[in-house]
Amino acid sequence: MIEKIVWRDTCLDILDQRLLPGKTAFVRAKTPAETAKAIADMVTRGAPLIGCTAAYGYALALRGKTPRSWREASHTLDNAAQTLKQARPTAVALAYAVDRLHGKARAYINSQTAFTKQAFAALTALIDREAKAVFDEDVKANNRLSEIGAKLLKKHSTVITVCNAGTLATAGIGTAVGVIYKAFEQGKIDRVYSLETRPYLQGARLTMYELMHHKVPATLITDNMAAHIMATEKIDAVIAGADRIAANGDTANKIGTYMLAVLAKYHKIPFYIAAPVPTIDPHIKTGAAIPIEERAACEVCQFKGTQVAPQGALARHPAFDVTPGKLITAIITENGLIAPVNRANTLKIYHGK
Amino acid sequence: MIEKIVWRDTCLDILDQRLLPGKTAFVRAKTPAETAKAIADMVTRGAPLIGCTAAYGYALALRGKTPRSWREASHTLDNAAQTLKQARPTAVALAYAVDRLHGKARAYINSQTAFTKQAFAALTALIDREAKAVFDEDVKANNRLSEIGAKLLKKHSTVITVCNAGTLATAGIGTAVGVIYKAFEQGKIDRVYSLETRPYLQGARLTMYELMHHKVPATLITDNMAAHIMATEKIDAVIAGADRIAANGDTANKIGTYMLAVLAKYHKIPFYIAAPVPTIDPHIKTGAAIPIEERAACEVCQFKGTQVAPQGALARHPAFDVTPGKLITAIITENGLIAPVNRANTLKIYHGK
Repeated sequence: MIEKIVWRDTCLDILDQRLLPGKTAFVRAKTPAETAKAIADMVTRGAPLIGCTAAYGYALALRGKTPRSWREASHTLDNAAQTLKQARPTAVALAYAVDRLHGKARAYINSQTAFTKQAFAALTALIDREAKAVFDEDVKANNRLSEIGAKLLKKHSTVITVCNAGTLATAGIGTAVGVIYKAFEQGKIDRVYSLETRPYLQGARLTMYELMHHKVPATLITDNMAAHIMATEKIDAVIAGADRIAANGDTANKIGTYMLAVLAKYHKIPFYIAAPVPTIDPHIKTGAAIPIEERAACEVCQFKGTQVAPQGALARHPAFDVTPGKLITAIITENGLIAPVNRANTLKIYHGK
Repeated sequence: MIEKIVWRDTCLDILDQRLLPGKTAFVRAKTPAETAKAIADMVTRGAPLIGCTAAYGYALALRGKTPRSWREASHTLDNAAQTLKQARPTAVALAYAVDRLHGKARAYINSQTAFTKQAFAALTALIDREAKAVFDEDVKANNRLSEIGAKLLKKHSTVITVCNAGTLATAGIGTAVGVIYKAFEQGKIDRVYSLETRPYLQGARLTMYELMHHKVPATLITDNMAAHIMATEKIDAVIAGADRIAANGDTANKIGTYMLAVLAKYHKIPFYIAAPVPTIDPHIKTGAAIPIEERAACEVCQFKGTQVAPQGALARHPAFDVTPGKLITAIITENGLIAPVNRANTLKIYHGK
């Protein structure tokens, strides 16, 4: 499998996905701040992978540090958690991973009395284990939800996906693209249409790269072709990932996902979201409350660093949109399907019942 | 107004719109073949402007030629007509302009007996006049339909447009953007969202350039943002141009137009097509019969010569899509509105009744 992040104990090497598919290079992060910057600058991306990256970024906080008190260690960890959580606002996997590690660390510190080197070493070991657990659990969730999702597809399916919710977006085989891989292994996938996904072109650069690497028949289309393809080809499903799912099933994902959901509805095509359970944010009632990151306008005015629009042009750059649960046929998770998508079913899956 | 084509009697200078907004340069065509190549290579574009360009391209056929018989002149003109009409398949304005000039020329030739220099000079003068008439009529149609269309908009409107159906797409002020200009003059336009329109980015490069030039408040969005903008902002109308309108009102236009129509329907936003009457093709019963140009896949895999997708990636590149008449609130023409959009109303406007 493609290596997306490599934990080297004193640093984290992060695959620079901005350079794919042309170049494979890693950005090295030695601190939580460097990790947060890599996430904010989109060196790495994909909600679950952002979570795993942040987990290891948090583990870097105490590397090379020799605090002399629990108070000092706590302060360092508080800063790390805050820095990492501010990197990007929409994907809840980031906050989930950081809060989880920080919670564990604080509980451990609170259980201690005297500050000793041994106890401090035990803290760092505990954090490292928890970071690895976040990563390993995502690998397992990917596999499980992909198996569950593949059952929804019939033989000779042609599916549409957007952005990259594959191995490059997760610790494992992916979510939406994971479902596609499992279904492909079962001989169910005839073709995948990958939306290029402006402005970062994750679909053109990353999903096409992955699918071609795994020999899945894939065709690239620009985002504005999706409706035409739905109207003129036999499309069996649309499958997308998720950055945050509200308690009622409303789902934030890469800009263009909501567009696909509306178009799928009109063309009577099933529309699926595939995401691990930590993508569900039970504290957010509906999609309207999910914070949508507005990135720099220059990312829209430029194309791979080349100015496209006139100098001084205004642009909007919402990086995500929200698809109402009512437009989602099912949300595919490692705990099973959320279908129909509503509050009761979403919370049932969240609590693993 | 921005000069799009400049007729220089022995040649036609065609604004190279591929270089806008960065650079203003002209490609010189001295023959119908060079004109056809400029159209096929998208030096110039926009259905009405393609028609005007082809008209002058046809007029170049006999430039510098000294045929010795009507038969020889006819043969040259037949070749010119064929070459020009093959340049691009979807926009009917091209065939309309060429057929119109060729029809006039043939009728004139058929009315002649002896071949004389004077009679030949009269033929070239007649063709030149007809080319100019095609251009001048488009200017007038732009103005008239823009006035009619502006009446559909209320004060404080925010509208969405796609591709470029402005002065850079026509002989005059434009069709969809012409409506916007007229409405803006009347104080009705608060803002225009321009879809960047991949892969050629006519919206980012040309529509933004025009709108900024005319001080119309404009914001660029990527194509996949349109649904999100409709769901989160007050959008009063979507206005697009047309490349060909079937007898029943089904409309072929730049890829992404059909997407906008479906999204507008879902969000209960009026969806207008603005186009001059020669865009109507009464010989085509429904949109299903409109030929949709499939351009090279590399135009989707690359951006301005830079490979974006992995080497060897497959891609689709339908340059247009078809919006069914039932999704169009009204078609705005210089002969009035087609509303509701159906065969009877479309043919009534076509025949100018």
